[in-house]
Amino acid sequence: MFIGILANTMLSTVPGVSGAGPTAGKTLLTPVLDAELITNGAITSMPVRPNTPTGCPTPATITRAIMELLDISPLFVNAGLVHIPTVPCLDLYGSPGEDPRFSDAVPDAEGIFLKAESFGRFLSRHSDLLVLGECVPGGTTTALCVLRALGYPARVSSSYVTNPVGIKEEIWKAVQARAGNFNPQYPLEIVRTTGDPMMAAAAGIVSGFKGNILLAGGTQMLAVAALLKAMGKKMPAIAMTCYVRNDPDADIEGTGEAIEVKIFSVDPGFGEIGHPGLARYCIGEVKEGMGAGGAMFLASLQGYTPERIRHQIFSTVSRYH
Amino acid sequence: MFIGILANTMLSTVPGVSGAGPTAGKTLLTPVLDAELITNGAITSMPVRPNTPTGCPTPATITRAIMELLDISPLFVNAGLVHIPTVPCLDLYGSPGEDPRFSDAVPDAEGIFLKAESFGRFLSRHSDLLVLGECVPGGTTTALCVLRALGYPARVSSSYVTNPVGIKEEIWKAVQARAGNFNPQYPLEIVRTTGDPMMAAAAGIVSGFKGNILLAGGTQMLAVAALLKAMGKKMPAIAMTCYVRNDPDADIEGTGEAIEVKIFSVDPGFGEIGHPGLARYCIGEVKEGMGAGGAMFLASLQGYTPERIRHQIFSTVSRYH
Repeated sequence: MFIGILANTMLSTVPGVSGAGPTAGKTLLTPVLDAELITNGAITSMPVRPNTPTGCPTPATITRAIMELLDISPLFVNAGLVHIPTVPCLDLYGSPGEDPRFSDAVPDAEGIFLKAESFGRFLSRHSDLLVLGECVPGGTTTALCVLRALGYPARVSSSYVTNPVGIKEEIWKAVQARAGNFNPQYPLEIVRTTGDPMMAAAAGIVSGFKGNILLAGGTQMLAVAALLKAMGKKMPAIAMTCYVRNDPDADIEGTGEAIEVKIFSVDPGFGEIGHPGLARYCIGEVKEGMGAGGAMFLASLQGYTPERIRHQIFSTVSRYH
Repeated sequence: MFIGILANTMLSTVPGVSGAGPTAGKTLLTPVLDAELITNGAITSMPVRPNTPTGCPTPATITRAIMELLDISPLFVNAGLVHIPTVPCLDLYGSPGEDPRFSDAVPDAEGIFLKAESFGRFLSRHSDLLVLGECVPGGTTTALCVLRALGYPARVSSSYVTNPVGIKEEIWKAVQARAGNFNPQYPLEIVRTTGDPMMAAAAGIVSGFKGNILLAGGTQMLAVAALLKAMGKKMPAIAMTCYVRNDPDADIEGTGEAIEVKIFSVDPGFGEIGHPGLARYCIGEVKEGMGAGGAMFLASLQGYTPERIRHQIFSTVSRYH
């Protein structure tokens, strides 16, 4: 079963933080559009194209391609969104994450965790393998804050070619100035103060689910793994694209070793696929998102060759661009 | 898999229409409270007791008892509610049903149907038997309107001992005066004009689901079956308590034969259970709801004796009263 957790953090509306949308304000819509694209195979609710201003396809098109290849119907979880989804979602009735510089980010982190845990128990009756992706524009910045608050000297990735490291570090400094010191013994308290709703939801689903789980994502899923470790819960492996794993700004290896989480990665070879937008993944644009890396990893596990996976992605992406 | 579809119709706030709540206004909360009771085993979100003013336990306590007996985690679908649920729900992002005397009841009936159909397809991957219950205070009145609009000379049941037949007939007359004649060839149009969001959701789930389905409910599920027949879809069997099946006001047999739907019923023997509130089911209070009859039928199918089922219900209900 493939689950995509959707959430907003108001940090994505800060100019320069997130590349996951045509403007800072419109990043808030991206989770809704991505879920619509993956569920229905097209975005019809509004006149937008599923790519960045430079023509780089949203990772949701990759996830959609793999869902078609593997004949999977994914399910989306609404952990806290500004806009109402256009497709059915398992709703945890959380609120969008606030800007942690000015107020607590997820006041109801514990409520979201408990509801997600209950949903995880439900899923246990009907699936033995869960791939858990996410779409949270601005989420690498909340991931940075949560990893730092948990005591890791982490750096995080970005959907931009040039990671806005300066802005992210300034946000973390402002959070520290507002909230003071953090106690890693209270991980949900850290999510409440400076995380985003996806983190509480992902941790809850993992806590309630009895089977095997794969976290599909980059530095945001590292933050989820770090939270689970701090909570004393089981810690699933993470699967991601090589584009985020090899991001020199992010230090995935170092942080992963510190958390002691197993990391798998896939090299989709987007440079040789014959699509200029996908090729931009190789120069560091987008890199990962909506469980795309985990979805491709799952396809590999099921025996599909890299060529077959690339062909599927190329033909899906070509439908939109 | 047990699915409970939750919705409101503003008809339940018309004094005298619905007995599913302590006051007409508070009937709007009942689906949320019932879902919380069944999911968590208790209502902690507000200080209410899960029974009618006369001490009759909500049918949700019966459904909860059977979920415990069968070790099932149910899932709730929010088809359109006034209040935000306190437990996770699969949300179709519908709006509460309007009063059909004054405006279209479910303007987005088709959208809800299509989203529910997509969810039904998802469920097909993970279950081969679906029991579909509902909780819609005021829903027997929308059921009356939809059955009549589809051309059936139907009468419907009520959670009151004395069915407010006069009010329901007046509402149907007012709907006809507003909306004119109905064409049974456009069943979703009938839901839009005078149904409730649950009907669109139930029809959509049945349409998208590939396995076996049992509709769990009384006259409201007869309306869903009639809609499915008019849409040319497969028509599942219905399971209900004997209290609603034998309701002389409702003519379940006649309407069921006209629709050509198979009806199962269970006699839970609440008269001999030793609980005065449950005994009131026998004199015609509550009668059915939240899939209680279908849940008990499922327990019978799985080999539980009537005595074991009664014992489970008695001990669950005794926890609350």
